[in-house]
Amino acid sequence: MVRQLFDLESSTYTYLIADMAKGVAALVDPVLEQVERDAALLEQLGLRLVAVLETHVHADHVTAAGKLRERTGATTYGSPLGAPCIDVGLADGDVVQVGDIAITAIATPGHTDDGLSYLVPGAVFTGDTLLVRGCGRADFQNGDAGQLYDSVTGRLFTLADSTIVYPGHDYRGHTCSTIGEEKRLNPRLANRDREAFIALMSTLDLPPPKKLATAVPANRACGTSQAH
Amino acid sequence: MVRQLFDLESSTYTYLIADMAKGVAALVDPVLEQVERDAALLEQLGLRLVAVLETHVHADHVTAAGKLRERTGATTYGSPLGAPCIDVGLADGDVVQVGDIAITAIATPGHTDDGLSYLVPGAVFTGDTLLVRGCGRADFQNGDAGQLYDSVTGRLFTLADSTIVYPGHDYRGHTCSTIGEEKRLNPRLANRDREAFIALMSTLDLPPPKKLATAVPANRACGTSQAH
Repeated sequence: MVRQLFDLESSTYTYLIADMAKGVAALVDPVLEQVERDAALLEQLGLRLVAVLETHVHADHVTAAGKLRERTGATTYGSPLGAPCIDVGLADGDVVQVGDIAITAIATPGHTDDGLSYLVPGAVFTGDTLLVRGCGRADFQNGDAGQLYDSVTGRLFTLADSTIVYPGHDYRGHTCSTIGEEKRLNPRLANRDREAFIALMSTLDLPPPKKLATAVPANRACGTSQAH
Repeated sequence: MVRQLFDLESSTYTYLIADMAKGVAALVDPVLEQVERDAALLEQLGLRLVAVLETHVHADHVTAAGKLRERTGATTYGSPLGAPCIDVGLADGDVVQVGDIAITAIATPGHTDDGLSYLVPGAVFTGDTLLVRGCGRADFQNGDAGQLYDSVTGRLFTLADSTIVYPGHDYRGHTCSTIGEEKRLNPRLANRDREAFIALMSTLDLPPPKKLATAVPANRACGTSQAH
């Protein structure tokens, strides 16, 4: 079972992945301000949190990974290139087992150098690598537009077209998409080669993320020892 | 295929219900400000909009039903007790066919007297009748707490426990629930009898909806001929 959750302040999606029969669950990209909501949901559904999966070190919100680890004993996972506070660094292809659900890490750097996507049967959690009709920026925090292009086109777009894309954010009210849709319709990536994508990304001229200076250091400590 | 969409300003959920093979779709509770987004999505997915389904006359946002009807020729549906502008009034048990998908209207008055829920295989769109761990208020616009109790417990809670509940709103980032969850966990309705529910609802003392004075008349005209 996958349950999507939304943080209205940062427009961040968190995902509960649960094996209801075995009573165990993972959370992908939980948000610090939503710890009580998410802990209540786990308790209500009789789920023990065994894994917190980070898609990357976020610059726009502070993770609840550390708090949830304290409260539940869950193991925190992410890229070894990301937050030093995580328990287990995942390499491309590594599998996190949550009951009978196998969650496979896919290395998708580019938005940040530590980007991971997580694949379950029928769906992929893409963090800020691939968004609905968009993608994360690549102009800060070790981002690299060429690497982002390779991650999306070489790794995500080779998944089955029917795979549901669960993004890390959406700012226009979209909740999900599919790989087939994004291959055909993503305005930044469909029918655009690597060089053209890099050129496009270099022209975006975006303001810095509002929480960059505070969220990144806080997230490197899993949200537990830094003010935010 | 069901696709959930969100309006961040009013925290309203809109639902796209599509028969992808036949290329036809319905929208449940579309929001006026999101007409361009929703029309773009329909076009991108190669879907012809054949039905707009209103769960009730809303007091918190203006419907896109009229605009979408103008643009696409879609038929608008709702309760005959609701907006006079709708094309087809649905009685309890009436079925709207969208390609191979049968959408069954369930009369669920109480939040308003014109409340309808819509059932498809495996899921029910409950408008403001049943929310995730909550329910709509019953203190304005012909609401009736006793009727709301009967609608939820007598009609919705008799569906299969596994039925996904797609609410009309959420203000805390929940996207869906199930009938089984709400029967067990809804803090207003689980383990509370009719009298106790009516008593509880009478104590809520909520401020009027921000758009009550403008949205209701606009929605009675399907959002096309009234300022808002």
